Amino acid sequence: MNADLPRLSELTERPSTRRKFLINSTAFGALAPLALAGCGPDESGHKGENGVATREGAGQLAGPGTALRNPDSKLDTGGHANVHQSTAGAPKGTSAAFRRFDPALPPISGEGTRRIQFTAQEVPVRISDDTVISAWTFDGDIPGPIVHVRQGDSVEFTLVNHGSIPHSMDFHASQIDPKVAFRSVAPGQPVSYTFRARFPGAFLYHCGTSPVLMHIGSGMVGAVIVDPPSPLPAAREFVLVQSEYYLGAAAGGVLPFDYTKMLATLPDYVVFNGRPGQYMNAPIKVKVGDRVRFYVVNAGPTHPCNFHVVGEQFDTVYLGAPPQVPLRGIQTFAVAPGGGMIFEMLADIPGEFVFVNHGFGHGQKGAIGILSVES
Amino acid sequence: MNADLPRLSELTERPSTRRKFLINSTAFGALAPLALAGCGPDESGHKGENGVATREGAGQLAGPGTALRNPDSKLDTGGHANVHQSTAGAPKGTSAAFRRFDPALPPISGEGTRRIQFTAQEVPVRISDDTVISAWTFDGDIPGPIVHVRQGDSVEFTLVNHGSIPHSMDFHASQIDPKVAFRSVAPGQPVSYTFRARFPGAFLYHCGTSPVLMHIGSGMVGAVIVDPPSPLPAAREFVLVQSEYYLGAAAGGVLPFDYTKMLATLPDYVVFNGRPGQYMNAPIKVKVGDRVRFYVVNAGPTHPCNFHVVGEQFDTVYLGAPPQVPLRGIQTFAVAPGGGMIFEMLADIPGEFVFVNHGFGHGQKGAIGILSVES
Amino acid sequence: MNADLPRLSELTERPSTRRKFLINSTAFGALAPLALAGCGPDESGHKGENGVATREGAGQLAGPGTALRNPDSKLDTGGHANVHQSTAGAPKGTSAAFRRFDPALPPISGEGTRRIQFTAQEVPVRISDDTVISAWTFDGDIPGPIVHVRQGDSVEFTLVNHGSIPHSMDFHASQIDPKVAFRSVAPGQPVSYTFRARFPGAFLYHCGTSPVLMHIGSGMVGAVIVDPPSPLPAAREFVLVQSEYYLGAAAGGVLPFDYTKMLATLPDYVVFNGRPGQYMNAPIKVKVGDRVRFYVVNAGPTHPCNFHVVGEQFDTVYLGAPPQVPLRGIQTFAVAPGGGMIFEMLADIPGEFVFVNHGFGHGQKGAIGILSVES
Repeated sequence: MNADLPRLSELTERPSTRRKFLINSTAFGALAPLALAGCGPDESGHKGENGVATREGAGQLAGPGTALRNPDSKLDTGGHANVHQSTAGAPKGTSAAFRRFDPALPPISGEGTRRIQFTAQEVPVRISDDTVISAWTFDGDIPGPIVHVRQGDSVEFTLVNHGSIPHSMDFHASQIDPKVAFRSVAPGQPVSYTFRARFPGAFLYHCGTSPVLMHIGSGMVGAVIVDPPSPLPAAREFVLVQSEYYLGAAAGGVLPFDYTKMLATLPDYVVFNGRPGQYMNAPIKVKVGDRVRFYVVNAGPTHPCNFHVVGEQFDTVYLGAPPQVPLRGIQTFAVAPGGGMIFEMLADIPGEFVFVNHGFGHGQKGAIGILSVES
Repeated sequence: MNADLPRLSELTERPSTRRKFLINSTAFGALAPLALAGCGPDESGHKGENGVATREGAGQLAGPGTALRNPDSKLDTGGHANVHQSTAGAPKGTSAAFRRFDPALPPISGEGTRRIQFTAQEVPVRISDDTVISAWTFDGDIPGPIVHVRQGDSVEFTLVNHGSIPHSMDFHASQIDPKVAFRSVAPGQPVSYTFRARFPGAFLYHCGTSPVLMHIGSGMVGAVIVDPPSPLPAAREFVLVQSEYYLGAAAGGVLPFDYTKMLATLPDYVVFNGRPGQYMNAPIKVKVGDRVRFYVVNAGPTHPCNFHVVGEQFDTVYLGAPPQVPLRGIQTFAVAPGGGMIFEMLADIPGEFVFVNHGFGHGQKGAIGILSVES
Repeated sequence: MNADLPRLSELTERPSTRRKFLINSTAFGALAPLALAGCGPDESGHKGENGVATREGAGQLAGPGTALRNPDSKLDTGGHANVHQSTAGAPKGTSAAFRRFDPALPPISGEGTRRIQFTAQEVPVRISDDTVISAWTFDGDIPGPIVHVRQGDSVEFTLVNHGSIPHSMDFHASQIDPKVAFRSVAPGQPVSYTFRARFPGAFLYHCGTSPVLMHIGSGMVGAVIVDPPSPLPAAREFVLVQSEYYLGAAAGGVLPFDYTKMLATLPDYVVFNGRPGQYMNAPIKVKVGDRVRFYVVNAGPTHPCNFHVVGEQFDTVYLGAPPQVPLRGIQTFAVAPGGGMIFEMLADIPGEFVFVNHGFGHGQKGAIGILSVES
């Protein structure tokens, strides 16, 4: 076994090692129950889902806030400044308020070379009005910021580890030596690398530090959307990252992630963009006549996302790089954990269309929302 | 959360709510152990699998029997009259006898506009000689009647709820506002809507009343087959609907569905067309030289159907709308829960070919049958 | 139910029957803990992964060793002679030493008609330095020998059962009456049949004796690779067979397979080519500029193989028979249990690329290895 990537079963056979992870996870939960994601002012600038003018380039700039972060303070919110860049248009609230994750694909800013900086953060995240989880995150939220580039773009990426254990970044949109680029960095340390986005599509990014199951399962996931050189037909574009939550007993009002439950593969929640059922109360809204394009990225860590829109059919599904070989007339298709696909439909009928993971035993534990088509 | 479509995890966190469903399910099981599906005379008219002349248009007419149904009588069989329209050619028997579900795709009747009426019924269904389950059904059987239409057809559909709790109908073959069309209706009430079948393929229909997991998992599922305008090559055509059964302890000789087990996702049975292994004793029969087309619809609620025919290979598999982009030379392909695909092979060798869900841990709990190719 | 293919759930409901299988499995484990696969001299002749000249035609010849096998001797190794034909270039060792499974696709030998003979053997197999499992095998190893033929070839196959219970052989690359060809044969008996490989692709073979779950789950699996008439682009070609291990408590230092755990579907290990993480310590090596082609066959018995290479993207994935309809730009794609797919990438960057089953809850229990691209 390679020391960087031990086999997970070893961990379950070594209680002391496994316990270490559980303790870490629990400790973060107890650390700062009031310092929640989404607690600061919205500084973003891109035009989000609801038409709010927001900062372009979700998550592409390292906010000075990251340097101000004080993990010893329960009221510290500095580390969350970047989050808002990726969640433009979200409801504002107090530091403890629930905040919806904006699913709108942000526009591409600039040409050719793009610079992105994320921080790895272990922070509580409020996933519903009454539930806070002890998360490991990119930029303080689950999922991390949506990245949007064009095929052929160079991406200059930096991760700064503001956490208490090693973390790393694995971009599925890249082709690069992972031993170097995706290496784990100690707390306080950065890692930088540049990759070129060779293929268009909907790609996962995630922390690849061992055990990967724990780092993905605790929330260090996000999406990179790569446009083809010739744009796809104009559409309202949304990103849905499915992930599973395996949670232990609350400590200090915060639910820790439970590594043993991750290995048992029966999740407590399965969610789109980090929060169970968040688009039921606050639907995704489009107009009659809009083409709607869902970039569905499945972070897993384990189960497929059997994506379906109730009352609709997809006229176009790309299993791989668009625009090649689309499927037509699809009711449901499974996106593998670690994969991404593109689902398109024409919203030619007004109504409230529920999108779900149609594998209901897992999927309906939160992987459900409404697409509201307004006339 | 939308009141019509609550998140399922809420139910598990509310014992009283969950208990209500379990009690309902159990109560149906205890209600009428002798009033079994398949107990009446066969009134059907289409030419089924075994060449028996049967009534055309499976399940398309509301039999007067539905009005005669008396749920207070253990001997009531009136509600099952419609069932036989969708199971033409099946073995006859006493009211308690096991009856095979005819997998033959019924012919399309009429042109342009088609009228279909189903009843929602909570009735025991005998799934093997010694096992009766407390089912929620369309027209008294699992699956419900096979619907066969042509792309572009208008389908005028009515559901009458003869059950004791709300039910509804979600057609994956439709594009329609689900909030209106797929709404739940109270016992005794009807709901009607008209949709046009825009895409060809093999589609699921199911009850979409919350919790959907319970309504799908208790048997309210079926298949709609939509032909393309230019017919596919002539073939013997069969429909296989996979579903999973999660059962509790017998009450009055009837096994109730168990919602908690559905959430734990370890099924007791996985079946094609409602009965474990029914096509082992009574194989599907074709002749050497026949092209065989399986419409495989996976009702789930949770696991994929990894469809395979032992000793054969599919020369054509349509992941989406036929006739586009078939795959060739397929041994096994996974149909997602909530999805459907079309599998074709040429039966050019005589023999007994076992078709299975090749994910054996779940699949061999009943998702197995024989295709007998006779010279 | 057909007596040859009983429904598995029957077994779980009949403790005495189930116990028989567990006892069998356990007994094999206790039988010969020192007579391990990979303990004899390497007699193979094809040019394997590491350039060692080895015998052509992995597993295609019945070694005389099979006739010499004495199952009553704990030191018997005669039955393993054939194994080395399929594991050319693997590390040598004592009878107890761990041996890596050579993933290199062996070349095709001869033209038109090919003769292959396997033995069914119940033998302990060392899957890591400190773990030996009580396996049921083809030719003494998990997986069995890699078979490589060309589309249109006739394969004359013979299985000789050197085990203590009935076994059989089901080739997914064949089209043949399984009732005759895939029939179970008693200990000491042979079965022979000839099939023609009609479709190109990556196919599973496995023992089809009831309960299939137990025979697949205990290791009787392997891969048949069928080339199309016009060769695919030149590439370094590797075969990865994923399988799941469900193990009981050690008996005599050997872990038996556990049928009840197979039915519960939570594996202890998920492995490529039989050993957890074997390609972490001993990577698969290629050169910069090589095209790399993975034939990924998923034996299951239950879970998908969500194949992914960290730091790389597949420019070509064949879901079915190549060269038709490849997908482009794939990060991860799910191979169904009982299925096989072909994944291609250009190794144009030096580095250590980890390949995994990205469904980490199951996959990281051993389905992980390194592709080392050397400049």
